[in-house]
Amino acid sequence: MGLAIAAAPFALAATAWAQSDPLPSWNDTAPKKAILDFVARTTTAGGLDFVPVEQRIAVFDNDGTLWTEQPAYFQLFFALDRVKVLAPRHPDWKDREPFKSALAGDMAGLAATGEKGLLEIVAATHAGMTTEEFAGIVSEWMETARHPRFARPYDQLVFQPMLELLTFLRANRFKTFIVSGGGIEFMRPWTEKVYGIPPEQVVGSSGVVKFELRDGKPVLVKEPKVEFIDDGPGKPVGINRFIGRRPVFAFGNSDGDLQMLQYTAGGDGLRFMGLVHHTDAEREYAYDRQSAFGRLDKALEEARQRQWTVVDMKADWNVIYPFEKK
Amino acid sequence: MGLAIAAAPFALAATAWAQSDPLPSWNDTAPKKAILDFVARTTTAGGLDFVPVEQRIAVFDNDGTLWTEQPAYFQLFFALDRVKVLAPRHPDWKDREPFKSALAGDMAGLAATGEKGLLEIVAATHAGMTTEEFAGIVSEWMETARHPRFARPYDQLVFQPMLELLTFLRANRFKTFIVSGGGIEFMRPWTEKVYGIPPEQVVGSSGVVKFELRDGKPVLVKEPKVEFIDDGPGKPVGINRFIGRRPVFAFGNSDGDLQMLQYTAGGDGLRFMGLVHHTDAEREYAYDRQSAFGRLDKALEEARQRQWTVVDMKADWNVIYPFEKK
Repeated sequence: MGLAIAAAPFALAATAWAQSDPLPSWNDTAPKKAILDFVARTTTAGGLDFVPVEQRIAVFDNDGTLWTEQPAYFQLFFALDRVKVLAPRHPDWKDREPFKSALAGDMAGLAATGEKGLLEIVAATHAGMTTEEFAGIVSEWMETARHPRFARPYDQLVFQPMLELLTFLRANRFKTFIVSGGGIEFMRPWTEKVYGIPPEQVVGSSGVVKFELRDGKPVLVKEPKVEFIDDGPGKPVGINRFIGRRPVFAFGNSDGDLQMLQYTAGGDGLRFMGLVHHTDAEREYAYDRQSAFGRLDKALEEARQRQWTVVDMKADWNVIYPFEKK
Repeated sequence: MGLAIAAAPFALAATAWAQSDPLPSWNDTAPKKAILDFVARTTTAGGLDFVPVEQRIAVFDNDGTLWTEQPAYFQLFFALDRVKVLAPRHPDWKDREPFKSALAGDMAGLAATGEKGLLEIVAATHAGMTTEEFAGIVSEWMETARHPRFARPYDQLVFQPMLELLTFLRANRFKTFIVSGGGIEFMRPWTEKVYGIPPEQVVGSSGVVKFELRDGKPVLVKEPKVEFIDDGPGKPVGINRFIGRRPVFAFGNSDGDLQMLQYTAGGDGLRFMGLVHHTDAEREYAYDRQSAFGRLDKALEEARQRQWTVVDMKADWNVIYPFEKK
């Protein structure tokens, strides 16, 4: 028997494995093994760790977990672009902070206006229209705006390994939710297309909306007032409000996700807690304790102490963005 | 050919029809026809009124629409039962309103304490424990408490025709949601078992909850403060917040549902708006414009003007409760 013939069955087996690998963009390192092990154990009927289908709730942070959040949250770029679009209607903005810095692209000046300045930007750009008009504005921006470094639409800067993970979990009958500090109305217009997550499975920060009859047509109008911040301790609150169950699987990347991970860990039975650690300055970004956006400090400490899964982006992911795939 | 043999195919056909009728507890009157017609038109691929699966959002009020709400909202009975359970720990209650009237079963006295009194009752009975403890209290009450007239557990007083409608819609790939003025945490422990509606598809009124580490265990504690009232104009707001899409199908029974119905009607394409009119004092209750609970006045006017579907309970439903079925 020649070598070629002897090897054939193994080659076939390897091909079958490659084809059936649900997480091909994950290297065969600890995080991938932890995910495969968790899903196998929680979905094996009769097993000790079996989780009934209706309790298979998986929650994901968005910024920095499902897509990039550097050099600033993408929603901030959206807001700054809106300031430019709206500026002709507000001649006073060119001399008035925080709009002056925003229009000049002066990020340091903008940062100096603090949270108050940021809220003023959000109020000026995220209110005064119906929810449906706002969704249209977001969709148009997503089609036309480009990321400053990658020169691609922002919704192409999603993490291929996480797309595979979402698909794998859903194939195993987990229900996947986004639980993000970002604006709920900013995410919902595109999460279904990009992540396969429908609007009703998106939890996020929100502004007040008001029911009105406008020319006899019932609409919801966005008001310039924050209603709920879905970050930090707000994440378990948001999960309880929108989902009403304690998740069994949670993935985040920053200190804003710590309470969500703690809350997930605090339930009975087997749980999965994961963090994305941004370690790849070449293919994406490298940052943690010192970052203005997505700071990862306390949560990294706790993850190491409690042996949660920490993804080292550089070592554990062989592809970052979908467009890298041949 | 004998008569028996000639009739056989027709008898078979009738049996097949009876077996395949998705709404057997609905008489063959206008509301049933309107429902069947709407579902056929919105689910026929290529048809003018076709609605893609992801947009098939159907919303239902709970009190008076899916279950009975007389002689008072069932959640009020729950609260009054809790006052009795908690009274030994609060000796001052027997001399202090609204608790004095609540303990004496004096509904007129309780009503005299107004909204302020009612909120005090809710605060005293719906706060001060974790969300998981509260769910346990609700579940236990649902097993042990009995309705004053029907002497059955409250969750048996659900409307059989509406259970059939929920099942029929889901079989046609509509996603069914509850949108209720009732407390979200009061409903979620039992809606999945009773209606097949999971917690994450329940929208309702809510109190503030707070994230805490209690003996190192992360929990959410219910606080005595109202956060959101999901009633009247609050219903479209709640729909937008939790679901993020305008429904295509909505069913209510009172003026508190009017804005939800208006909001549903205000979208493009074919829509279904329905109201349950309680007209059957013998089998259930008869009330509308004068009722303290579930008043139906303006919404009935608007339904008639706009030709929304109005269910006449007495004429249109041949079974009210599941336990009536042989």
